[in-house]
Amino acid sequence: MATNPIRDVDLRARALVQDMVASMRHAILSVYDAANGYPHLSRIAAQADRDGVPMALLSEIAAHTHLLEANPRAGLLIEATQATKGDAMAQPRMTLQVVARRLPRDGSEHAARLDRWIAHNPKARAYAQLPDFHFWRLEPHGGLLNAGFGQAYYLQPADLKKPPTENGRGE
Amino acid sequence: MATNPIRDVDLRARALVQDMVASMRHAILSVYDAANGYPHLSRIAAQADRDGVPMALLSEIAAHTHLLEANPRAGLLIEATQATKGDAMAQPRMTLQVVARRLPRDGSEHAARLDRWIAHNPKARAYAQLPDFHFWRLEPHGGLLNAGFGQAYYLQPADLKKPPTENGRGE
Repeated sequence: MATNPIRDVDLRARALVQDMVASMRHAILSVYDAANGYPHLSRIAAQADRDGVPMALLSEIAAHTHLLEANPRAGLLIEATQATKGDAMAQPRMTLQVVARRLPRDGSEHAARLDRWIAHNPKARAYAQLPDFHFWRLEPHGGLLNAGFGQAYYLQPADLKKPPTENGRGE
Repeated sequence: MATNPIRDVDLRARALVQDMVASMRHAILSVYDAANGYPHLSRIAAQADRDGVPMALLSEIAAHTHLLEANPRAGLLIEATQATKGDAMAQPRMTLQVVARRLPRDGSEHAARLDRWIAHNPKARAYAQLPDFHFWRLEPHGGLLNAGFGQAYYLQPADLKKPPTENGRGE
């Protein structure tokens, strides 16, 4: 127990991480609230952007959005099984250190993101186009993967990026 | 949208909160890591103590435990359905501001807590008695309940306490 129980990532762990991010439809966001000194948690709609970077769709009236605007450094918990039938404590999960950046709500990039988002999650059509909703990129700066009991791995930003495909679009 | 969309708690919301805490078997913990400036998230084993205060069973070799020892102010996300079949985004959930305090690992109080814990979660028998595991009380100082779309409520510590029963044991 005196040794560091956390490993460096290997090919199997990296494949698991990329699969978890690609299949993500929501996640847990944590933003530190400097006003009261506690982290604030919320479940948010989240999907991978084309390059594998996690993205959130947030309403500007939500408490977490106000906190992110004040402090863009956040934590993101992604779990392997979103609609789990088994024991959540036995599922792989990872905590990421992310820096959040709000994306503009106009232009062809926004329209393409919106189309992909709704294709992955048709229920989002009901709110995704409301004027208070924006996409946020959650750029990962590091993380920790818990792939099962005694299997913890440090993650680097490159472990989360999708390898570029031939047409360079990452899809 | 200019008005505060968050309500004060009512009887229905308080009953929901108390039921969610009583049936909790795990939760999401977030601790701010002052060394890197990001909140750290993890899924932890969690149950209500006799008086309704959330309690965690944590290994002292886990990253979150080291962070809690340095900074006992944490966030706790509790979701209504732990093994959900439906859409997690549609389930009630609450984020609490808690102050964590490690409990001693000896004496009759510890033994009684261990018995209750294992009765609620028999799988915990495999690790709950290992020497690196301790109970932590997560005393709530406030919170926010999201009971569904547009239904957000501020929570006070009293909303989470079980009303005392006649024998004063809260069970």
